[in-house]
Amino acid sequence: MPTTLKEFESVWPQLVEDLTAHCKQYGLPTNALEWYEKSLNANTVGGKCNRGMSVVDTTAILLEHPLSKDEYFKSATLGWMIELLQAFFLVSDDIMDSSKTRRGQPCWYLQPNVGMIAINDSFMLEAAIYLLLKKYFRQHKSYIDIVELFQEVTFQTELGQTCDLLTAPEDHVDLTNFSMDKYTFIVIFKTAYYSFYLPVALALHNAGFASEKNLQTAKDILIPMGEYFQVQDDYLDNFGAPETIGKIGTDIMDNKCSWLVNQALKVATPEQREVLDSNYGKKDKDCEAKVKQVYDDMGLEQIYKDYEEKRVGELRTMIDNIDESEGLKKEVFEEFLRKIYKRSK
Amino acid sequence: MPTTLKEFESVWPQLVEDLTAHCKQYGLPTNALEWYEKSLNANTVGGKCNRGMSVVDTTAILLEHPLSKDEYFKSATLGWMIELLQAFFLVSDDIMDSSKTRRGQPCWYLQPNVGMIAINDSFMLEAAIYLLLKKYFRQHKSYIDIVELFQEVTFQTELGQTCDLLTAPEDHVDLTNFSMDKYTFIVIFKTAYYSFYLPVALALHNAGFASEKNLQTAKDILIPMGEYFQVQDDYLDNFGAPETIGKIGTDIMDNKCSWLVNQALKVATPEQREVLDSNYGKKDKDCEAKVKQVYDDMGLEQIYKDYEEKRVGELRTMIDNIDESEGLKKEVFEEFLRKIYKRSK
Repeated sequence: MPTTLKEFESVWPQLVEDLTAHCKQYGLPTNALEWYEKSLNANTVGGKCNRGMSVVDTTAILLEHPLSKDEYFKSATLGWMIELLQAFFLVSDDIMDSSKTRRGQPCWYLQPNVGMIAINDSFMLEAAIYLLLKKYFRQHKSYIDIVELFQEVTFQTELGQTCDLLTAPEDHVDLTNFSMDKYTFIVIFKTAYYSFYLPVALALHNAGFASEKNLQTAKDILIPMGEYFQVQDDYLDNFGAPETIGKIGTDIMDNKCSWLVNQALKVATPEQREVLDSNYGKKDKDCEAKVKQVYDDMGLEQIYKDYEEKRVGELRTMIDNIDESEGLKKEVFEEFLRKIYKRSK
Repeated sequence: MPTTLKEFESVWPQLVEDLTAHCKQYGLPTNALEWYEKSLNANTVGGKCNRGMSVVDTTAILLEHPLSKDEYFKSATLGWMIELLQAFFLVSDDIMDSSKTRRGQPCWYLQPNVGMIAINDSFMLEAAIYLLLKKYFRQHKSYIDIVELFQEVTFQTELGQTCDLLTAPEDHVDLTNFSMDKYTFIVIFKTAYYSFYLPVALALHNAGFASEKNLQTAKDILIPMGEYFQVQDDYLDNFGAPETIGKIGTDIMDNKCSWLVNQALKVATPEQREVLDSNYGKKDKDCEAKVKQVYDDMGLEQIYKDYEEKRVGELRTMIDNIDESEGLKKEVFEEFLRKIYKRSK
């Protein structure tokens, strides 16, 4: 049985207590202590926690038994560290992208009295990862490997963000900047490593099966799976039903380096290219409609569906070929794939 | 012979090469690679490098011999990690404080095409520390201790920054927020740990003398010394000669939680308190002059000089009492104190 959000969230208060206890021991003044606690809760809790929960589920599959109370707590704690890493990224990305809302609330930096203090708050969300690792995993035989894993994945995500910010600045449209190569780099580094590879790599370390070979197999499958997930996201932004995905897509108006525009650039006739150049990235519904028309004329929906079938076929083959002799389990990857194949939201 | 800035800076290009080589191995697109290299150089080099160079000098004192080429490189690399940590803080602090210039140039976030990308750039300056540690210190017996030391000092500095931002927001003056306790917390956490304790703790690990006792002794002396250094800074901001310190002090107009205003609040008569309340933190030369007059009337200059003599006496006593049996050397601390006692800039 996969874990539930409720179970997973029940671990969180203990982690907040650990972090604030650490601060109290330094004699942190009360106003700053309360501020940190508020930032931790406001920015880490409230999402779907798919990444965090998948550490728990993957650990249970690898260990082949229902988790004991302590096993649940430890794997959920690793899961919450991914949620903290994501909180660190989201708080800062929202400032960099001038976003207005996050999870139905004003972004943290737009909340009363926060402003640019949010930058320092994002740092302290990242720091929480290592405080918790030290508290709960210092005796674990993979401690230093887990620390290095978080550091490497953090850096990879930052590289993806750098490339994204330089390739698609919101205020300067230049489609010659885009390319499928850059797109692939951005989605793999900015999303796939921390969202797909990291949870499984952590579960492998946690369960004691983190051999070189298992980590490499996990990466070989989860990176293309994460890429596929982001391509789906880009597809749904334009072709999904707003009432199902819960938002109205804005990638075209926001000048996003999306899979769709990169596909379009590959097959565009000179006339279509002209339409894209003059209408992409403009905050104007009519311009957006013209781009959407070009996408439809090109049959991008079908091109996506062909891509999906091909990619899923490749993933299934890789999963079938997994060598389980060092403790890895095909089921781990089947679960991930099941959750995303043909998703509509 | 203490190291020179020129020698110390000669190590830097190799570190930039290591960091960019790491990125190339990921296939980072050229525009992002060049961006990172530019940020590394613009934000890390160009300061006095006192913190970084003191790792080299302290290592040489502890080892009791002139450093070999490799010893110099390794200790300077640790020194550059402190400079990277500081670069991470300065790039982000400048955004949080709306600063305009840094080291005589526009702040990084104000340079052409940078803007809020500077937030992500600051993250990648921090990440560089751990990439270099992994490359050069993974085999060192203190590797994990050095990693944890950087993480702890980073968190301590962030706590100091939180407290500072909450206590002295530039746009909201309320002197009842200030207190000597908060002041002490801010200067110890925001400055003393990374500027004074960190260089010596790194040198102790590097030289192989990082016993619990030596680390504790170093902390017991360097934290009050760092506090004294910051008090001096606050004193010089008001009482120093602008032509000597190289800038015109603005702490009063900037609503800084300075040592001087906290001393003033302790001894103010009701009338003087009234003057402080109505004139502190205002961007107005006349208001500033009224505060300065109150400082003079209170004899703050003499109060500072008495503080300095008392603190330096205590530090000298602690240094005299150092037990050198585990490889620690009094000379390390004498050097630090010599550089700051009665400094005028």
